[in-house]
Order: sequence, then C-alpha cells, then structure tokens
Amino acid sequence: MKSVIPVKLPQQSYDIRIAPGGLDYLGPWLAAGSGPDLGPDSGPLVRPGQKLLLVSNPVVFKHYGKSAIASLEQAGYSVSPLILPAGERYKTMRSIEKIHNLAFEQRLERGSAMVALGGGVIGDMTGFAAATWLRGIAVIQVPTSLLAMVDAAIGGKTGVNHPQGKNLIGAFHQPKLVLIDPTVLATLPVREFRAGVSEVIKYGVIWDRPLFEALEAAPRFDRQRTVSDDLLQMMLTHSCQAKADVVAADEKEGGLRAILNYGHTVGHAVESLTGYRQVNHGEAVAIGMVAAGKIAEEMGLWEASAVQRQQVLIEKAALPTQLPAGLNIDNIAIALQSDKKVQAGKVRFVLPQQIGAAFVSDQVDPALVRQVLTQIQSA
Amino acid sequence: MKSVIPVKLPQQSYDIRIAPGGLDYLGPWLAAGSGPDLGPDSGPLVRPGQKLLLVSNPVVFKHYGKSAIASLEQAGYSVSPLILPAGERYKTMRSIEKIHNLAFEQRLERGSAMVALGGGVIGDMTGFAAATWLRGIAVIQVPTSLLAMVDAAIGGKTGVNHPQGKNLIGAFHQPKLVLIDPTVLATLPVREFRAGVSEVIKYGVIWDRPLFEALEAAPRFDRQRTVSDDLLQMMLTHSCQAKADVVAADEKEGGLRAILNYGHTVGHAVESLTGYRQVNHGEAVAIGMVAAGKIAEEMGLWEASAVQRQQVLIEKAALPTQLPAGLNIDNIAIALQSDKKVQAGKVRFVLPQQIGAAFVSDQVDPALVRQVLTQIQSA
Repeated sequence: MKSVIPVKLPQQSYDIRIAPGGLDYLGPWLAAGSGPDLGPDSGPLVRPGQKLLLVSNPVVFKHYGKSAIASLEQAGYSVSPLILPAGERYKTMRSIEKIHNLAFEQRLERGSAMVALGGGVIGDMTGFAAATWLRGIAVIQVPTSLLAMVDAAIGGKTGVNHPQGKNLIGAFHQPKLVLIDPTVLATLPVREFRAGVSEVIKYGVIWDRPLFEALEAAPRFDRQRTVSDDLLQMMLTHSCQAKADVVAADEKEGGLRAILNYGHTVGHAVESLTGYRQVNHGEAVAIGMVAAGKIAEEMGLWEASAVQRQQVLIEKAALPTQLPAGLNIDNIAIALQSDKKVQAGKVRFVLPQQIGAAFVSDQVDPALVRQVLTQIQSA
Repeated sequence: MKSVIPVKLPQQSYDIRIAPGGLDYLGPWLAAGSGPDLGPDSGPLVRPGQKLLLVSNPVVFKHYGKSAIASLEQAGYSVSPLILPAGERYKTMRSIEKIHNLAFEQRLERGSAMVALGGGVIGDMTGFAAATWLRGIAVIQVPTSLLAMVDAAIGGKTGVNHPQGKNLIGAFHQPKLVLIDPTVLATLPVREFRAGVSEVIKYGVIWDRPLFEALEAAPRFDRQRTVSDDLLQMMLTHSCQAKADVVAADEKEGGLRAILNYGHTVGHAVESLTGYRQVNHGEAVAIGMVAAGKIAEEMGLWEASAVQRQQVLIEKAALPTQLPAGLNIDNIAIALQSDKKVQAGKVRFVLPQQIGAAFVSDQVDPALVRQVLTQIQSA
C-alpha cells in the first residue's frame, strides 16, 4: 500500500509519499529525485554529498532517529542531528536560533537541506529555520504524528509562536518532499493520535464526504490499534489529497485555503487561553468544530442532522465537545478579536453548508457566538 | 523628471517610482494603487483605513518622518512609527523582535503593511519583519540612501545578520512599491553617497555600458552637490532598471542574478573582517571590484584598458581601491570559504568580460586570488 500524492504549485511542486516502512527509503528517495514536475533524469531532490541537518525531538529521535540517519548516510548525505525539546511552548525564536547556529557551524550551503523528523512543532520550526537560512534552503518533512501527517507537514506553512500569540511569526516555505510512514504511529501517544483524527474529521466535513462516511462506517478510531491498515491508509490519503487540492488552488491563503481553518477560530482561542497545555490542538479544533457547526445550524446554513452526525464522529474519536471547565466566555470573545484571521476587525468563521462543503463568513453575529459558546460550556 | 520602472515578477509585480519631491505623494500613491499588473480600477496597494508601521532610524526620521507620516495620514492610514538605532550592528533578530512586538501591540492584520523609511539596514529589517509577520504582510520601501535606492530596496532580498555572518538569516519578500525621492539625498553624509556610487559603477560594469560612459563623461560625482540633476536621475533610473531587469529574469538567484554580486565576494570578506565599521558596504564593494577586475585580467578574460577605466571611475568617486591597512590575507581566504555564495566548497566570483557584461565563475584559482589580494594591499 503505497500512495504518491502530488502537490501542484506554480513555483515548486512536490510529492507526498505515504508508504508503510518508507522511513528506510528516505535517503534513496531524496537521492533518486522524484516529483510531479520532474522527469526520470531530473536529478536528486538534494544532491548526495550534501550536508543535512536532521531536527527532531527526544522521543521521536529515540525511536526513529537511528534508522533515518542510516538511510540518509547510506545514500551519501552528511547528517548532523539536532534534538530540540518537545512541545508547543518551545516553538519560539530561541529554538530557531539553535537551528541557525548549527547551520552556521556546519557551514550549510544553498544546496544543503534540513529534515524535520517529528510532529507539527518540529515541522513548523524546521520549515521556518530553512525558510530563513540563506534566504531559503530546502526542507524535507517527515511527520511522525497523525496531526502533522494530515495537516502541518503539507502546504508550506511554517513558523513559531510570538510570546503573545500562536504562529504570529512565520513564512510560507514549501517542502521538497513529504514522507509519511504510517508504521511510526504505533509509538504515538493515544491523545496525540486522537488530535490527528480531529483534523481527519475536519476534511470529511469541509471537503470529502466519502471520508466522512468511511469514518461513520468504522467501528472505532479512538486509538491507532483500533484502526485497520486499510482505514488508516484511507484516512491518510484522503486527508492529504484534500489538503493538496486546497493548497494547490490557493497556496497563500487568498481565499479557498481559509476553509482549512474550520474549527480553528474558536479552537485557537481555546488553545491560547489554556496556555497551549491543558487542551491540545486537535482537541481545540474538535471543540471549535462543534461551535462552528452549531453557529451554522443557528444561522440556518447547515441542517441539524448533519451537525449531529459530526457530533457523533467527534465523540467516537473520544475528543472533547465542550469548552474546558473554568474558561471565561468574555475572554474567548477578546481572544477571537486578536486572531490572525481577523480582517478589518471582523472575526471570520468557516461554516459548513453540507457534509463535504464549507465556506468562509465574516457575517457571524458576535451575540450568536456568545450564545453558542454558552451552550457548549462544561456543566 | 519622473520615472516609473516596473519590476515584473511571476507572482507579484511592482513599480519603482523615481520622483523628486515624491515623498509627499507616498500616501496618495499607496491609496490610488498603481503597478504593472494593475488596471486603472485595481484598487489601492494598501487599503486606506489600514494600519501601517513606519520603521525608520533617528536621523532619517528627524528629517523626513513628519512629511511621510503626514502624507500617509492624509490619505487615510493609521500610522505607528518605530525608530530603530542606525547601523549594520543593529541589523539583528533583536530589532526584528521590536518590530514584531509593535505589530502585535497595534494588532496588525494581513491587510496591514510596514513602511521602511531609511537606508539599507532599515529596508532589510523592515522587509524581513514584514515577510515573517502573519507569514507575510505588505512592505513599502522608501529608501533614503543612494545605496538603498539603487540596490537594497529593489528585488525582495530581506534579512538580518547572524552573530557570525552577514545576511545569513533572511527571506525573499518583494515590496508593493519602491518610492525613490532623490531630493532626500541632500542630507545624506558624503561617505554614504559615495558608497551608493560604488553600486552605480557596478551596474555600469556588469550590465549598462551607456551608464558607465556617462560616468566617464561627468566631471565629478564624488558628492551629491557635484552631480547634476540630470546625471543623478540617469544614475538612478539606469541602476534601478538594471536591477529590475536582472531580478525579473531571476527572482531567487538561481543564475543570472548572481552577477549582481560583482565585487561582493572579496567585499563581504573585507566588511566582515573589519567588523562592518571601518569599511562600509560600498567601499568594500569598490575594493572587491578592483580585485575581481584584476582577477579577470589575469585570467585573460578582461582587457587591461577596461580594468584601468574601472579603476579611474572608482577613484573619481573617491572610493578605496586597496585593502584596508592591517588586513591579513590568510584571514580573507578563510572568510571567502564561509561566504553564502560558496557552492560545494567552491568560492564563486563574478568576472567582467567587457564593459556591460559579466558572468559567474567558480573556476578561480585560490592562488590567483591571493596574488591579486597581495597586489592591492596597502603600502
């Protein structure tokens, strides 16, 4: 079961390769060179002999660092590993400085590359460090969390957090290759697996009705070992294809791409107000999808039965559907106003119209937002 | 005397406007909207009502801050000024953090913009801060030094220095508009004026023989008040056109654009080894052009008479033609190896073939480099 999904962009296209055991082929695939724009003699994605920084976190590196490095070194690359602490609170300019310092020490050149082996935090930071070293060198994304596989690693969004807001500092920088090896999910903590499922459900709601219906038909998907290999491959390929479709249509988030933010308006506020610790990103998005679904329902845009079907999927993933206890609704309203997606002072929501289709609206009445948030307060 | 030079790029084209007194029209031009891709009803470059950060240095702001802000506010913008200390040694991530902090405080949105009013340091920093805020917001370049007018403000190179190397951290980020008001050169210190002339001579050598010959015909150009309005306009329009041509052909420095680095290989090493203080950028480039010219001559690529004509122009601009006293040639050789432009360990030089044409070579014998550097050591 191997899938190759091309992401077609005007300036640089690249492949998402989904292959169980693919981590062992990281080096050969980089050296062989492949991609939607590339013919058979196109040359390597990164020239063998080049220097690579491999950035990872302690847990992922312990499990997969050795085999990734072995694969790269056998293909002729010179690899310098850098282990950064795990967690959203380390996604800062200080970590970028550490990557840049090693890039200087190792004398990386314009033909060198950085490899992100880890979850979304490692991917975002490594991508941003590569985007800003020598005005942009190549980055290879090797996501090891389900969330990063279906979302963060694809599409070129990179960045770090500002002390006062998430992802405020960043750049668009497309990878040369996204390599997804589903077997690494075996060591992913269950809570992080569920966080990834949250984004998979999102693609079902906004883009891919067959994916939504496959999840409805599955007996369970609340942990990796309850998911069949076939369903996992479908979740990955459909989610990556959805993201690739949307990104190809709108690389820099001028329009369509904004629908990927479904569940993220309230989600970001919840993450931010809980200090990025109590609630993880996927959980926050789940709560945000519940909120956005109810807003769409109240505005007469989405039928109640569909809202209910979404609710069932989120519960089946063992994801939260209510605001965390103690969260003040006034504070959420203030946080919504400082969101990156605010335009001319208007908060923007992604609202579903049917299962498989959504649109962006800045016409949501703030009073309705408060009403819905009150409905989903913890008892 | 007003000139508009379009910079045509696949993703975003923009105009360079060269107009004496143009600073007073900054606001109206942003609001009116104009550009090579834009029809008459294309809408503003930045929507009036939007927030602007105006970044400047103390001296430039004292002279021109008031009129720039007045022009912007009269056109309906809300302007927050930020004054950063002048000088290459402040071109650091710390300054970027200051800009980002103000961007957060002022709640800049994706439709907001940053305006760089100053020389190359202000332009590079403001451009990089804009490139990395919310993954890229608009930047307007209003260069006030001759060097920034003919080089740094055009072409989208932005960035800051790493503690161990110049411009190692950065991104490509094209401006929405470059506004050049030559009248502001009246307050530019003479040494900085000459530094700009160094880049003008560079364009003559690598791209524009008529510009080179106009400089040869001019009685003097060693200070602003010795240059006629006509010659100044020609220096600006020809230099900007040269840069626009080269950048349009090669936005990301894949090939042709590298010729703009004429004089910069040895130049960067000289700047770096003198701590960016003793020798300024234009002076370093002048020394670098002398070195590269002699290397080309020794390799039989450029005729001796042309090398001599270049020498005469550099001397006429009162720019240095010898290495600063005390600079060790071994150290220059080491610095050359850590240059951003090194590929596969090979140092790259831009070499003239005739007046108006140059090419990039990585085939220069290191022994020849040392021989030429010895020739231009101070007595």
